[in-house]
Amino acid sequence: MDIEQFRKAGYQAIDRICDHFYSLRNKPVQASVEPGYLRALIPDAAPQTGEEFENIADDYQKLIVPGLTHWTHPSFFAYFPTACTFEGILGDLYSSSVANPGFNWTASPACTELEVIVLDWAAKLLGLSPAFYNASGVGGGCIQVTASDSALIATVAARSAYQRDHPDARMEDLVLYTTTQTHSLGAKAALVLGLQCKMLPVTKEDRFSLRGETLRTHLDEDIKAGKRPFLLIATVGTTSSGAIDNMPEIRQVAKEYPTLRVHVDAAWAGVVLSCPEHRETCFLDDINEFADSICVNFHKWGLVNFDASTLWVRDRKYLTEALDITPIFLRTAQSTAGTVIDYRNWHLSLGRRFRSLKFWFVLRSYGVEGFQRYIRQGIEQNQIFVKLVENSSVLELVTPPSFALSVFRIAPRPEGKPLTLEAINSLNRFFFGRISARNDIYLTQTMLNDVYCIRLAVGSMLTTAEDIQGAFDIIKKEAELALENWKIPDTLAAGGSV
Amino acid sequence: MDIEQFRKAGYQAIDRICDHFYSLRNKPVQASVEPGYLRALIPDAAPQTGEEFENIADDYQKLIVPGLTHWTHPSFFAYFPTACTFEGILGDLYSSSVANPGFNWTASPACTELEVIVLDWAAKLLGLSPAFYNASGVGGGCIQVTASDSALIATVAARSAYQRDHPDARMEDLVLYTTTQTHSLGAKAALVLGLQCKMLPVTKEDRFSLRGETLRTHLDEDIKAGKRPFLLIATVGTTSSGAIDNMPEIRQVAKEYPTLRVHVDAAWAGVVLSCPEHRETCFLDDINEFADSICVNFHKWGLVNFDASTLWVRDRKYLTEALDITPIFLRTAQSTAGTVIDYRNWHLSLGRRFRSLKFWFVLRSYGVEGFQRYIRQGIEQNQIFVKLVENSSVLELVTPPSFALSVFRIAPRPEGKPLTLEAINSLNRFFFGRISARNDIYLTQTMLNDVYCIRLAVGSMLTTAEDIQGAFDIIKKEAELALENWKIPDTLAAGGSV
Repeated sequence: MDIEQFRKAGYQAIDRICDHFYSLRNKPVQASVEPGYLRALIPDAAPQTGEEFENIADDYQKLIVPGLTHWTHPSFFAYFPTACTFEGILGDLYSSSVANPGFNWTASPACTELEVIVLDWAAKLLGLSPAFYNASGVGGGCIQVTASDSALIATVAARSAYQRDHPDARMEDLVLYTTTQTHSLGAKAALVLGLQCKMLPVTKEDRFSLRGETLRTHLDEDIKAGKRPFLLIATVGTTSSGAIDNMPEIRQVAKEYPTLRVHVDAAWAGVVLSCPEHRETCFLDDINEFADSICVNFHKWGLVNFDASTLWVRDRKYLTEALDITPIFLRTAQSTAGTVIDYRNWHLSLGRRFRSLKFWFVLRSYGVEGFQRYIRQGIEQNQIFVKLVENSSVLELVTPPSFALSVFRIAPRPEGKPLTLEAINSLNRFFFGRISARNDIYLTQTMLNDVYCIRLAVGSMLTTAEDIQGAFDIIKKEAELALENWKIPDTLAAGGSV
Repeated sequence: MDIEQFRKAGYQAIDRICDHFYSLRNKPVQASVEPGYLRALIPDAAPQTGEEFENIADDYQKLIVPGLTHWTHPSFFAYFPTACTFEGILGDLYSSSVANPGFNWTASPACTELEVIVLDWAAKLLGLSPAFYNASGVGGGCIQVTASDSALIATVAARSAYQRDHPDARMEDLVLYTTTQTHSLGAKAALVLGLQCKMLPVTKEDRFSLRGETLRTHLDEDIKAGKRPFLLIATVGTTSSGAIDNMPEIRQVAKEYPTLRVHVDAAWAGVVLSCPEHRETCFLDDINEFADSICVNFHKWGLVNFDASTLWVRDRKYLTEALDITPIFLRTAQSTAGTVIDYRNWHLSLGRRFRSLKFWFVLRSYGVEGFQRYIRQGIEQNQIFVKLVENSSVLELVTPPSFALSVFRIAPRPEGKPLTLEAINSLNRFFFGRISARNDIYLTQTMLNDVYCIRLAVGSMLTTAEDIQGAFDIIKKEAELALENWKIPDTLAAGGSV
C-alpha cells in the first residue's frame, strides 16, 4: 500500500467509524455467534499473494463486526465500561503512525517526557498528593497495560523490598493479602510469582469493605505461624459491588506492621476522585498519606481508550530497585537524579507504546470540568436506576449503590412461604438467564458472599437517562416473567434458612 | 467532540500522517532536544475547560514531533527496526474504534477467534510444526505485548511445571539459564520472579552461539551443588550480533535433562523463517521437535505495528495451568476441550487489545510472497553493506553478518605499532561518538565479549539500496576522521596484548 492508497483507505476507515457510531444504538449489544463461527468463513492460511485492501476492509465489516460485542453500546451495562472517545482513537492513530517503542528517554524523548507530564496532570485531576507527582523527583507515575499488570508490578516491588530487608526470608513464606472481594488481579499476581495469597473475609454489614480488625487478626495469626506478610492489595471500588476497603483502619494497622506494604487498586472507581465531593468516601486523605502505590484505569470509566492503566508510587526506587537490570555502574547521573526517567525500569516489558498522547488529547479536549461532568453524569444515571429499583415491588438492591454501579436481585417475596437462600439464588439465576438471552441489553452476574446478584454498571459514552429507564423496563419485565415462569427445583423446595 | 468533528479531525490526521511519510526522508533521524524540553512548553496541569481539538492537533506537530526519534526513517539502523505499515496503522485504528478488551471468548467472540486463526497463519508462514497450531487443540499461539512478556510468561509456565513435579523444591534453588549474549529479557524474568539466572559463556569462535557442552557442564555443576535447573532461554538471533544458539546440541542436552524446559527467543530473527532458505540456519527442525515455546516479534522486522509479540507453546496447558485463576469447578467443557480459548489464561493481564486485526490486514495485504520479499530485501540490503565493509581498508566485521544485521568496527591497522584491545576499543568509542553526534543516521553500539563494536540493523520500510550506500559513505568518512583525530589516551599507550 502506498501513501495515496493509505489516504484513501484511511478516509474510508474514518467514514466507517463514523457510520459505526451513528448506527451503534440500533445494533445488538451482544454478538450472537457460535464458537468457531469465524473459522468457517476465513481460509486456514494467509494468501500466497497480496490482496486488495478494499476487499480486506469490506471483510472486516462483513465477517468481524458481527462477531463483536459492543462495549461502547448505550445498553452495555456488563463488567465495567470501556472508554472509547474520539480523542482517544485519534491519539492512538497518531501514535501508531510513528511506531515508537520509547523504552528509555533517548529512544524517543517526547514519548517519555509527555508521559511524565500527563501523569502529573492525571495525579492532580484525582487530587493525589504531590508526593506521587513525577515532578517530585521521588515518587511518580507511569502507564501500564492493565490493573493486573499494575498489581503484579506492585507485588514484585513489595516482595523485592521485603527481601532486601529480610535476606533470610524464604519466598514460600511470603503472604500477599486481599479480600474475598478483591479483583482476580491479587490471586493472579500471587500465582505468577509463586507466592501465597490470603483472601480475608468481608461482610455484608460492612458493605464488603475490609476492616482493620480483620486484617490485624490475620496478620497476627500468620506471623505467629512463621509467615511473612509483605503486601496488602486494598480496593477502592470492588468489581462485584464497588466496595471500598476501610483505609483509615488499614492505615492504622499498617503503622503497627511497618513491613506490610499497601497497594491501592482503584482501577474502576479511581476516576471519581476527579470530583472533590467523592474524595472523602474514597478515603483519599488516607491514601495520600500512607499508600505505597495506587492504580487507576482510565481505560474503564476514564475516557482514555485501552490500554491506559495508571500506576503511581510514592517512591520510584520502589519500582526501579525491583525492575532495573542496568548494572549500577551504568546508571547515569541524570537517571538517578530523576532528570531523565527510563520507563523500561518501571514496568515488565522493554518496549512500550506511546500511550501518553491519548491522555493528552483527552484531558485537553475535555478539560477538568468536562471530565468531572462525565463522571457525575454516570453517577446520576445510576441514581435513576437506584430510585427505580427502590420503588419497585419486584427488585431490591443487595448492597448500597457505589457511584455508577448497582447490584440487585429479585427480592424475596414477603407473602407466601419463605424461600431459602438457595431457592432465591436459583430464582435469580433463572432471571439472569432470561436477561442474558436478550441481545438488546448486557449485564453481568456476581456473588456477594453467598448471595447471587446481578450488576448494572453505567458509563458507556452513549448512554442517556432514557437508556437507563429503558434498561429498567426490560429488567422489570424479565423479573416479572421470571417470577411467573420459575418453578422451585425439587431439591430446593424443602427447608433451609434464608 | 461529536461524530462530524471526529470525521474532520480524522481526515486531518490521515492527511498529516501522509505528509509525515512524504517528508520523513528529509527529517533528522534523531530528536535533538534536551532533557526536560517539553516541561518548558506544556502547562503543569490539565486545562480547567476543554480546548478546541484543532489546537491540540497542531500542538502535536509543533511540540511532540520535534521530540520524536524516527524509528521508521530510512537511515534508522539502531537497535532493531520497528514495524510500521499502513495496514498495521489501519488495523489499530479500526481496533481502537471498537475498544474491545477480549479477555475471554464471550467478551467478544471475534477478537478471540481472529487471533486463534491468524496465529495459525503466522505459524504456517514461519514453518512451525502443526503441534504449535491453535487448530491442534493441544498447542497454540497468542499475541503478547513484547518478547520480555513472552519470556516472563514462559518462565512462569516452566517454574510452575517444575514445582508441580517437584513440590519439595525451594524457589531459591531454581535456576534459569541464558547466555551472556541473551537479551535482557532473561535477566528481567528472573528478577521479576525472584529466581536465579545464570548466564553461560559463549565465544567468538562459536560466533557467540551457545554450545551443548557448555550447557551440560553448567547443568552438572549446578545439580551437584543442589540447584534446580528448570529453564533455558535459547536465542535465534541475539541483539548484539544475531547469534543463533546451537539448537541440535541443546536438543541433545535437553533429552538428557528432561526437567529442563526450553524457550526459544526468536524475537528479531524469527521472521526469516518465512523464507524456507533460512530455516536450516535457524535450526527450525530442531525447534519444531523439542522447544516448549517460541517467541517472534512481528513488531520488529515483521511488518505488524507494535505491539505484536507472538508466543507459541507446544502444550497450552503449560500456560493455563500456570496462569488460570478460574476455580476448576468453573471451567467449561468447551474451554477444556479447546473449542473456545479464553486468552486471559495465556497472559499476565486480564484485558487485551484487539491486536489480531492488524496481523490479518498485514498478512492479507502482503500475502506470503510479499512478506518473504520484504525479509529478503532486508537481507540483501545488509549484504550490500557487508560487501562495502569487506572491501574497505578501514573497517572490519567483528563477526559474520546475521541476516539483516552487521557488527563492525575500525580494524586494527596492520602497519605501525600494534594497539592493545583497550586502545582499539577506545578508538572505536571515539568513532561511534562521532557517528552518534550526527542526526542524519542512527546506529547503536554493543560489546561482543570484550570487543567494542557498532551495530547496523537494516529493516525500516523506507530504506533503499541507495540509503545503505549513503550510510556506508557516512560511516567510512567518520571512520577516516576518527583515525585522523583520535589520540591514544596516555593510560592506554603502554603495553597490553591485542
